[in-house]
Amino acid sequence: MKNYHVIFQPSGRRGHIPEGMTVLEASRLLGVGIESVCGGKKSCGKCRIRIESGTFDQHGIHSQPDHLSPFTEEDCKFIGEEDRAKGFRLACAAVIRGDVLVFVPEESRTGNQVVRKEASEKKISLNPAVRLFPVALPLPSLNDPLGDYERLVAALLERFGLQHLEMDYPALLSLPGTLRKGNWTVTAAIRMEREILAVFPGEVEEAYGLAIDIGSTTVAGYLCSLKTGNLIGTESFMNPQITFGDDVIARITYVIDNPDGMNKMRGVIIDGLNHLIRTVTGDHGLSPSDILEITIVGNTVMHHLFLGIDPHALAFSPFTPAVHRSLDIKARDLGLKAHPAANVHILPVIAGFVGADNVGVLIAEEPYRRDEMTLIIDVGTNGEMILGNREKLLSASCATGPALEGAHIRFGMRAAPGAIERIRIDPETLEVSFKIIGVERWRPEFRITGALGICGSGIIDGVAELYRAGIVDRSGRFRSDLTTPRLRLNNGKPEFVIAWPDETSLDGAITISQQDVRNVQLAKGALYAGAKLMMKKLGIEKLERVILAGAFGSYIDKTEAMILGMFPDCDLDCVSSVGNAAGDGARIALLNRDKRLEAEEMARWVEYLELTLAKEFQEEFMSAMFIPHMTNTFPHLPPLRTNKT
Amino acid sequence: MKNYHVIFQPSGRRGHIPEGMTVLEASRLLGVGIESVCGGKKSCGKCRIRIESGTFDQHGIHSQPDHLSPFTEEDCKFIGEEDRAKGFRLACAAVIRGDVLVFVPEESRTGNQVVRKEASEKKISLNPAVRLFPVALPLPSLNDPLGDYERLVAALLERFGLQHLEMDYPALLSLPGTLRKGNWTVTAAIRMEREILAVFPGEVEEAYGLAIDIGSTTVAGYLCSLKTGNLIGTESFMNPQITFGDDVIARITYVIDNPDGMNKMRGVIIDGLNHLIRTVTGDHGLSPSDILEITIVGNTVMHHLFLGIDPHALAFSPFTPAVHRSLDIKARDLGLKAHPAANVHILPVIAGFVGADNVGVLIAEEPYRRDEMTLIIDVGTNGEMILGNREKLLSASCATGPALEGAHIRFGMRAAPGAIERIRIDPETLEVSFKIIGVERWRPEFRITGALGICGSGIIDGVAELYRAGIVDRSGRFRSDLTTPRLRLNNGKPEFVIAWPDETSLDGAITISQQDVRNVQLAKGALYAGAKLMMKKLGIEKLERVILAGAFGSYIDKTEAMILGMFPDCDLDCVSSVGNAAGDGARIALLNRDKRLEAEEMARWVEYLELTLAKEFQEEFMSAMFIPHMTNTFPHLPPLRTNKT
Repeated sequence: MKNYHVIFQPSGRRGHIPEGMTVLEASRLLGVGIESVCGGKKSCGKCRIRIESGTFDQHGIHSQPDHLSPFTEEDCKFIGEEDRAKGFRLACAAVIRGDVLVFVPEESRTGNQVVRKEASEKKISLNPAVRLFPVALPLPSLNDPLGDYERLVAALLERFGLQHLEMDYPALLSLPGTLRKGNWTVTAAIRMEREILAVFPGEVEEAYGLAIDIGSTTVAGYLCSLKTGNLIGTESFMNPQITFGDDVIARITYVIDNPDGMNKMRGVIIDGLNHLIRTVTGDHGLSPSDILEITIVGNTVMHHLFLGIDPHALAFSPFTPAVHRSLDIKARDLGLKAHPAANVHILPVIAGFVGADNVGVLIAEEPYRRDEMTLIIDVGTNGEMILGNREKLLSASCATGPALEGAHIRFGMRAAPGAIERIRIDPETLEVSFKIIGVERWRPEFRITGALGICGSGIIDGVAELYRAGIVDRSGRFRSDLTTPRLRLNNGKPEFVIAWPDETSLDGAITISQQDVRNVQLAKGALYAGAKLMMKKLGIEKLERVILAGAFGSYIDKTEAMILGMFPDCDLDCVSSVGNAAGDGARIALLNRDKRLEAEEMARWVEYLELTLAKEFQEEFMSAMFIPHMTNTFPHLPPLRTNKT
Repeated sequence: MKNYHVIFQPSGRRGHIPEGMTVLEASRLLGVGIESVCGGKKSCGKCRIRIESGTFDQHGIHSQPDHLSPFTEEDCKFIGEEDRAKGFRLACAAVIRGDVLVFVPEESRTGNQVVRKEASEKKISLNPAVRLFPVALPLPSLNDPLGDYERLVAALLERFGLQHLEMDYPALLSLPGTLRKGNWTVTAAIRMEREILAVFPGEVEEAYGLAIDIGSTTVAGYLCSLKTGNLIGTESFMNPQITFGDDVIARITYVIDNPDGMNKMRGVIIDGLNHLIRTVTGDHGLSPSDILEITIVGNTVMHHLFLGIDPHALAFSPFTPAVHRSLDIKARDLGLKAHPAANVHILPVIAGFVGADNVGVLIAEEPYRRDEMTLIIDVGTNGEMILGNREKLLSASCATGPALEGAHIRFGMRAAPGAIERIRIDPETLEVSFKIIGVERWRPEFRITGALGICGSGIIDGVAELYRAGIVDRSGRFRSDLTTPRLRLNNGKPEFVIAWPDETSLDGAITISQQDVRNVQLAKGALYAGAKLMMKKLGIEKLERVILAGAFGSYIDKTEAMILGMFPDCDLDCVSSVGNAAGDGARIALLNRDKRLEAEEMARWVEYLELTLAKEFQEEFMSAMFIPHMTNTFPHLPPLRTNKT
């Protein structure tokens, strides 16, 4: 029987699938969660997927619609003419007959309500840009025929002392009707005490905002009350741009190579965000038009692609962004379907590869208020670092690849139900224990019976534990002298079994391969080397605080990270793991407008260090590939947790 | 043979047409100019018209597609599926078989390039909102990787001292490409020294703006250079909203009665304006995106309908507008297809029936700078008046109906080629001489051989001359004792022949009927009575200056207007006729931003007098219906020009 190359996006899961298997079956084999209520009986229509056409060079495969069996009657029932033309199929009805790249749209993904870019419990002092002002107006008469707008503005001046008010056009459009519907008592939503965004009939109590973190891999939205500051809901989705390239460089390349690339790239992220807005509001009994303010963070490439600005210049020296400063743009101009008058505040960027996400981390962690020499590592698909204190701050970026997020790992997956997020290996017995995401949160139609893959925090744990247990050596090579059935050969290459077939929902075991270990080494080596270079630049020998940020699944286990050598030695009590600090920053900027000014100021103050310019980088990197390092020591690592071999 | 009621819009021309005649033939009979290069041979496709479906109460007719002969092969050739569904036909192929309301779209109208809302030769001091700033930037490098936006802003600060610049989103979108295309020399179009609207590669010399006067009947656009202030081109079209109602009250009623009325009403005016923008720019080798600023004037209902604001409240006491103040809205938010970053400045309105068009007249004529007690009459479809001087200004509005614009007059037509615009009647012989528009301007495909109708200035002349020659008496009644063949009966009602059949391009003579005279009396009576009431309110006996404004064809003949009694007596040397002063105001606001502040201030300062509240109005009106007036005398009217009977 022939095998074909099948890739699922946006998860990036891939494998060789025997001819004749359906796309739904293949998805299960590869641990890709596709909704199916009927279990593949072609009757529920939930498993809609899209086949992408074209040659996908980075994967080296050619995908086209007739690499699946022809369209069936059942497909017809659930897929309209227009979607059919776009390549939609039912996963359960489509039989694989050639290489295919399958895109699983958000609505067909299982477990998409589980958010691992969770919001932290940060206390944020409340000073939102948009506030509500209820006001009662005197009725107009022939002796007082003042216009509606002037009547409202006069009442707002009298009652609240608000001066020089302007009104956004959409609010003006409905003003006459609103005043009369509210019987001349209305609530004005006003931005920065200056711009009337909306007028609601009667007295309205609550206003809402949305903070969005656009990661290269995961996009998260945090719905907040602008009145209480409370986090009301969280929602995330995989960045659909991943179809066009896994990392920022691949995406820029796609835009350069494809005349329509920019539009496509921008279209899918805007569609995704609109879906997120609908979902997160709908889940809480609200509608998109309840969102009156949005804040956005993201790396510089995500920032440009979201705005629709050609990212070309970011790929070539001197890597200049189109704009550094923060931007305020109407949601309607961006194509975002929130309240039509809603403002979108996009945080500033520092440099070509140190983006608004890092500025989010900055205002969330405030190293510029600290005395201690602090290193903040934000690991997304790129690794971005900030080093310094109130005296001086340096920023830098290094290409880690997506391994630390669970991508480009054989059984890697995003942090969704079924992902292994914690791994421990007993150094004596070499037995493995692990924790799976999703036991506490599931939907009836998606019962987790076993593991589906390994997410970011799991892979960091896994490689660190392999080393600690002496299964791989300092150079990352699997030892060949161990006699555990978990260490085995696969096509002649060693791999270590984390979960046996009966512990998984796949048709086999979940393992960590030699290549997986190598990918983690490359990533962590880049981070370590970057940190060392920054320390050298600042002339410091020792870190006084390390903050690990990033949306990895659960928070990174700081001890495992130090075992791995992700960062130079530091007192473990001074190492903390903060989760998605970039998202926290977006939320902070949403709820407190003063922090936007701080962001603007700090983005300008931070000094950007271009690592590619530093000649020592390559050398540092080579040494840092070792676990935990070729020569540097980690005096603060408890002896218990070090490799005994 | 049966006769059917046929109405052509937007001209409003109507008549009873025998069954079996084509729409094109009917249009010729009624003096409606429809393009036809092939002369009705169904081969040129120029005579596309649209049949409107529904019962049109104000005309009392029911119109529907099958009141025309079936769609022919020739129709198919020139009319696509979509347009067919909308009711489009070839006028030459459609035979009349029932009552029909026919809409003649702008592109099918003859003579539509002849603009009677001509711009005056006013000297306007130049201080536009948008100016161009050419600047050369230092090249970025790894040691100076400043972003594009910050680089541009720094250069503009250094070269021109421009501070606190913002950039509109569309400009940002193309910034990286523009800077590189211009090899780091670019020209920034900046509004109010604050907002960068656009960046062009290289050095650009000229920027353009458009002033628009939205009349109930005629819409005019004035294309100007923002660099020199020169008027580059003028273009006008009939307001397509006329299909939904001739005057402002009919249009408000349509919006109230039809759920989709607002959208339709707004849709047609925006479409019309976009067509105007394309045409006026295209005629001068420019494109719509060359327009960087737009100013708008119009009466309050036109203002609301243009913006898409429900005009409901304008129809009921206390007639409050949605907003008085001037507005600045992006062209893109309004759906206007100019430069996407262009700003649209809409002049303020004074009251429900004294609109931004009057504010335009105000800043064009500046009565607030005069010592003389000045009356300004702006006659459009409504009559709006301003009375006063630097001490105090009153404004008022009266419902004149559209007679003074040539509408609701049997042979009335808009000021287009073929319209009689001047009429003189010899009091001795009762012979008529007249002047036709269009002899000096024509297109090869439209050869004027005779008169088609009478436009606004013509009808004022005509009725004044009928009175002066003693053909009608003071009460407006035709005398029955004259023995000229020009005075004849038509269905038992008297009418006076202005042009004999061989002097027209119609199948008969052009006449002024008793009803026409009555309509003019109603209109001029309303104006006179309104002026009297305003004078009473200000406690003045005598006018020191009268300014006649309005787009009537040629300028109003001031002597004929006084013979008619359109306004109280004034020294004829102190009466002037200024043409489209509202349009002048729009142009002034376009070219001089200081005048916008003046407009805002004056719109607030002018006191609005609600004539419907004044009990004496009806009485004044009754007396003012007489020609020139029942009791008031006109000592300044030269004896030569008065009725000798």
